[in-house]
Amino acid sequence: MLAAAPQGAVSLDNFRLMEAPVPEVAQGEFLVRTLFLSVAPVMRQYMIDGAGIELPLRPGDVIHGRGVGQIIESRNSDFPVGTIVHGKLGWQDHAISDGADDKLMFPVGSRDLPHSTALGVLGMTGFSAFVGLFDIGQPVEGETVVVSGAAGGVGSIAGQLAKIAGCRVIGIAGTPEKCDMLTEELGFDEAVNYRSGNFAQRLADATPDGIDVIFDNVGGSVLDTALARINRYARVVSCGRISQYVDGPNHALANWWRIGENSARMQGFFVYEYRHRFAEAEAKMADWIREGRLRWREDVLDGFDRMPEALCRLFEGRNLGKQVVRVADPLSDAELGL
Amino acid sequence: MLAAAPQGAVSLDNFRLMEAPVPEVAQGEFLVRTLFLSVAPVMRQYMIDGAGIELPLRPGDVIHGRGVGQIIESRNSDFPVGTIVHGKLGWQDHAISDGADDKLMFPVGSRDLPHSTALGVLGMTGFSAFVGLFDIGQPVEGETVVVSGAAGGVGSIAGQLAKIAGCRVIGIAGTPEKCDMLTEELGFDEAVNYRSGNFAQRLADATPDGIDVIFDNVGGSVLDTALARINRYARVVSCGRISQYVDGPNHALANWWRIGENSARMQGFFVYEYRHRFAEAEAKMADWIREGRLRWREDVLDGFDRMPEALCRLFEGRNLGKQVVRVADPLSDAELGL
Repeated sequence: MLAAAPQGAVSLDNFRLMEAPVPEVAQGEFLVRTLFLSVAPVMRQYMIDGAGIELPLRPGDVIHGRGVGQIIESRNSDFPVGTIVHGKLGWQDHAISDGADDKLMFPVGSRDLPHSTALGVLGMTGFSAFVGLFDIGQPVEGETVVVSGAAGGVGSIAGQLAKIAGCRVIGIAGTPEKCDMLTEELGFDEAVNYRSGNFAQRLADATPDGIDVIFDNVGGSVLDTALARINRYARVVSCGRISQYVDGPNHALANWWRIGENSARMQGFFVYEYRHRFAEAEAKMADWIREGRLRWREDVLDGFDRMPEALCRLFEGRNLGKQVVRVADPLSDAELGL
Repeated sequence: MLAAAPQGAVSLDNFRLMEAPVPEVAQGEFLVRTLFLSVAPVMRQYMIDGAGIELPLRPGDVIHGRGVGQIIESRNSDFPVGTIVHGKLGWQDHAISDGADDKLMFPVGSRDLPHSTALGVLGMTGFSAFVGLFDIGQPVEGETVVVSGAAGGVGSIAGQLAKIAGCRVIGIAGTPEKCDMLTEELGFDEAVNYRSGNFAQRLADATPDGIDVIFDNVGGSVLDTALARINRYARVVSCGRISQYVDGPNHALANWWRIGENSARMQGFFVYEYRHRFAEAEAKMADWIREGRLRWREDVLDGFDRMPEALCRLFEGRNLGKQVVRVADPLSDAELGL
């Protein structure tokens, strides 16, 4: 639960572990036992003043968050015992849901793949990459796609999807090891470290034909540098702004005018508005995973008590791939009484 | 013709008047006698380093520009003598064209309306307002639309079209008389002078429900102030950047992050890409003019030699409505030998 809203960076003492009895399951509800929980930069916003549809948290509240879990008790025939679901479980080891509205749960489709994928490549992370790239970015074969925050959960998938679409893909990341991962493991054509010197020149060298799509997870000066290279009719997918979450909107964008000048487009999106695309996104990406064309990397910490540490790691840029926490292993059919 | 490219602001000595014989009309060509010429902020860019599809001008070149004229000699059966056309005549009193490509000419459809409308409300100015507002801005009845540079050629039309679409329309302009024109003559709901104090607060007062569409002709700090008020799913039509033409991109955009944060969209456009919409735009706007629902204001200077002055007026913010120059009156059928 939230102990106190962060002043500046998120720290471990913003959180407190609280014990409470597992609630009774009412008619129409079901009880989910948490298997994995994920962390995301936006959680810091939840703790301060809310974000999107989430109201701001008060001290004592359970932190909002997504997880994957197993239904272990049910009074709802649409969600039988044993089903693996993902949804807004919150930072807790058991959650009650009726499957509707705010507590919307999605059954996991591809059960041959690890359950944690429902928090990453086959969950909102992957769906954000999929709809952001294909619906907003609309890459065309042969175009140049630049992905910022490319070693992160969404970025690493978006870049691979752009490769599958036949594009030249350049990833931007903040450490040499992340850059190596992009080119050596994930098939990016090039990777540029924005923290080493001469970033603008090196990005220019990596994009000799300019940039047609920017898939931006970072914002700020990295986005600004990339905007200087956009081509006519470029699309800028404004997916995340992690550079701005900690210190506020501290970087004013000098190259904004290139959007109008190039008949380009910069657009944000709210992934839940694209819910009609989730089934197609899951099916396609699961196939690409099975074919070995789409890889994902998770950074798994073990134990529910490590959730605050997991969130802090994001802001320190220490995670390689989607940061998740393993809370429990699934129960067998026998253990579930099936 | 261009005498010397401007250093900073455009001034009269960037230009020189040159006399040349009227060229022979070859097979497939026709000769257009200029009636009106228009000026636009982008012309300063032509004189420095080109813009869009226009190559940079060199000293001695005829300045690129649009005009309306009458065909007085023709060896092209698609363009008979007497036809009124608009197109890229350049800054000259006679122009040769074959009607193709670069010298593309559009016949004027609504000949019951003044010929100068083909340079304004029923030409590229009006078409920019039409496709910018309807195709990019996509206003919905009841939404709040803010137009910057609202007293200018494109802005004054865009605001009226937004009223016709049933929106609440707020115009931003730079003098009290321009603001009065917007509310008293053109039917804007409110007008805000960005040059008087407390602009941000007064824009906030004028947009109590936030802003759904920004039709931006100005860029810079005016755009930035408006971005602070955008609603979820807002559309920002990046039509012009007159604030940036003189001193370069001198205002970095602090509120860029609100686009991503609000699932909003900022988009530029190149009006010639929407050529398939011109006939519909002309027909609809001509009807709205005849019904008295769409008004336009021209600022007419008389005499070809006043073209440089007309362009300078734009950058000084002295024009009220579309700035045009009357070069000649049309010839009668008798004078044309018809």
